[in-house]
Amino acid sequence: LDSGRFMHVRKTIHDMPACDIALLLESSPSKSRTELWDMLDADFYGDVLEELSEDVRNGIITQMMPEKVVDALEDMEIDDLAETLSSLPQSVSKDVLKSMDEQDRQRAEKALSYGEDTAGFIMNTDAITLRSDVTIEVILRYLRLKGEIPESTDTFYVVSRNDTLIGTVPVTKLLTAMPDSSIEDIMDEDAEAIPVNMPETDVAKLFARYDWLSAPVVDSNRQLLGRITIDDVVDIIREDAEHSMMSMAGLDDEEDTFAPVLQSTQRRSVWLAVNLVTALLAAAVSDLFEATLSQMAVLAILNTIVPSMGGVAGNQTLTLVIRGMALGHVSAGNSKWLISKELAIGFFNGAIWAVLIASVIAIWKQDWMLGGVIAFAMMINMIAAGLAGATLPLVMKKLKIDPALAGSVILTTITDVVGIFAFLGTATLLLV
Amino acid sequence: LDSGRFMHVRKTIHDMPACDIALLLESSPSKSRTELWDMLDADFYGDVLEELSEDVRNGIITQMMPEKVVDALEDMEIDDLAETLSSLPQSVSKDVLKSMDEQDRQRAEKALSYGEDTAGFIMNTDAITLRSDVTIEVILRYLRLKGEIPESTDTFYVVSRNDTLIGTVPVTKLLTAMPDSSIEDIMDEDAEAIPVNMPETDVAKLFARYDWLSAPVVDSNRQLLGRITIDDVVDIIREDAEHSMMSMAGLDDEEDTFAPVLQSTQRRSVWLAVNLVTALLAAAVSDLFEATLSQMAVLAILNTIVPSMGGVAGNQTLTLVIRGMALGHVSAGNSKWLISKELAIGFFNGAIWAVLIASVIAIWKQDWMLGGVIAFAMMINMIAAGLAGATLPLVMKKLKIDPALAGSVILTTITDVVGIFAFLGTATLLLV
Repeated sequence: LDSGRFMHVRKTIHDMPACDIALLLESSPSKSRTELWDMLDADFYGDVLEELSEDVRNGIITQMMPEKVVDALEDMEIDDLAETLSSLPQSVSKDVLKSMDEQDRQRAEKALSYGEDTAGFIMNTDAITLRSDVTIEVILRYLRLKGEIPESTDTFYVVSRNDTLIGTVPVTKLLTAMPDSSIEDIMDEDAEAIPVNMPETDVAKLFARYDWLSAPVVDSNRQLLGRITIDDVVDIIREDAEHSMMSMAGLDDEEDTFAPVLQSTQRRSVWLAVNLVTALLAAAVSDLFEATLSQMAVLAILNTIVPSMGGVAGNQTLTLVIRGMALGHVSAGNSKWLISKELAIGFFNGAIWAVLIASVIAIWKQDWMLGGVIAFAMMINMIAAGLAGATLPLVMKKLKIDPALAGSVILTTITDVVGIFAFLGTATLLLV
Repeated sequence: LDSGRFMHVRKTIHDMPACDIALLLESSPSKSRTELWDMLDADFYGDVLEELSEDVRNGIITQMMPEKVVDALEDMEIDDLAETLSSLPQSVSKDVLKSMDEQDRQRAEKALSYGEDTAGFIMNTDAITLRSDVTIEVILRYLRLKGEIPESTDTFYVVSRNDTLIGTVPVTKLLTAMPDSSIEDIMDEDAEAIPVNMPETDVAKLFARYDWLSAPVVDSNRQLLGRITIDDVVDIIREDAEHSMMSMAGLDDEEDTFAPVLQSTQRRSVWLAVNLVTALLAAAVSDLFEATLSQMAVLAILNTIVPSMGGVAGNQTLTLVIRGMALGHVSAGNSKWLISKELAIGFFNGAIWAVLIASVIAIWKQDWMLGGVIAFAMMINMIAAGLAGATLPLVMKKLKIDPALAGSVILTTITDVVGIFAFLGTATLLLV
């Protein structure tokens, strides 16, 4: 990109579809990203912005003039527009809203008013509506006149005079129905509709469970407000699944792989700070046994084994329960059973690894008593790990804390503290 | 479920859609699961099995008679059938194949022959094909006679006399096109087709990137073999995203939350065994410094802090790079840049936490020299963590090892060993 091949690169990117330009921008370090963006024709801005992830998009928009942003956002679909505006810093989004023309601003403000992460926020308003008393022939004539049908349309919606949703007609049914039959004869009256304030994760679950391609969105009076299409749901499903993985490592899901160094350092430091506190807590527990440790250095050497095994076992349980909750498998009805199952696994795991570690230590350090102590501590910590791993996410959900975000660090703290107490405590009682 | 409410439960589940019955089965402990299954009418078997996750489905099928399995699988779509058969133990799937009638067996064996996780494996063969020289009017007459169009059909495929794919026609275009125009006039000749041996993760990426609802599958001569629909792709996207999270905790993605205790214990033990080896390795490193530890018990107390911080920082980098690779953002072209970025973050993180921990220790233990030693070790380990976190997944990918599966454990081993060496080594040189 450095050399005189500027014109060549410029031509190449303008031949690419918007989603590929977005991928290129996201795969570039921030400096080249700015250079690439500056090369791009203003006509491409809207389509490319739509495809970018939040972090990258905001980085670009905050460097643009508000008027240019408005031009770029003009052609966006309403759901993408709402998402873009809501993710921008307030001062920027206000400037942008102010520069919009009256009609666009109203549409945008309407979508924003439903609240982020709801059905109303992700819906589009381009649904095609039909009346129930017309014949297929009339509809076909109307559609031929209209000439174009919005992208991803697989279903038409049948509404009454006051826009109440009364049925749905799959596009394919218009093709197979006899021309003289009426919409009423072929429409599906039991079609499910999504309430406008349903959280987007629940919308995604419905789509995944029933294999929908699109679904109508209605208000509390069953008035049709818009439709949600599968392509937006795919993004939600992916983000939800990624969210758990990223949160468990203490990362923001939208974190940009190629963000500037200082920004990344700052973001990740929160998690490191939390971990420093828990590491110091574990050290403080060890500190209680300083006298024991100074008498037997071998305890210091083996002190990390029991906490480490507990941490791994506990995290396995935690991950499984968090996933089970995300899939809707874990609920109040079966949580008791789940906890006792994980306790039993903890018990068996404890027994297996207690015997193994006792043998290894007895042979390595030629001390059967020491082996017995570490075996006992392992047993205790594995059971604690199973109990904590299964209980924590359930308790945190009740307290409305995201278990993926804080579960792992609390769990590790528990298994560290229990592990050190069990090992050094028993050692102090029996060996010193 | 215990009491005489048997008939009531029986009636209730038969009123539920198949996907909800599947959810109920997946949310039940294994004993109630068998009871529920036994209550179910044989007519429901196929639809419910289709919706179950692999682990749960296999548990149920292996308890059924082969003939009953064949009856249940008969109505499945070809892609679901292939997936079910391939996930069964070989002996069971052979029995099932043997009991099938000739035509079904051939279809199933054909799908299996494409190899698991390829486009051919997940495609359906129910695509509707059109000839290019007919008019819309003729097509509409044909479709009305046919009466039904397969589910999730959003596109028809235009093929030549020898079944070569020459274009696509969206269903909606048939509605808006004039009756006397021919397919040739309205078809899209540049439609992209998926090669039959493309890996399913690549298929999913294409769908997500281009917002497809379906896509044709072709062989190397561009002969149309079938089509892939978005509902199957949604499952792949979710499984891919879950896969990383589950693997990082050493779990199988298909692991059933409510599996029997012994089965779960056995599955999770592999990862615990690996962790035991690495924990013993870390202990062996500490063992090298036994003389130092027996002289200064305070070193034993603080010995876990530096490895723990390195582990967290390294896992953040690792998770980010694994996600970046999954999204297609990280490639050979920018990996150098990425490694130097993560090294720089490691350096800054190291500096910040070195100063902080040094102050805490100097105040807590009233020993500035000890604070200096731990600060130095922190610096070294944070840089090592950044380097290892960024390099490991890239190296593992080259070696064709799944970074999500083994990356985290290798990384933690590195940060443990480097952390202990840096801390106890420096302490031995300067403090004892």
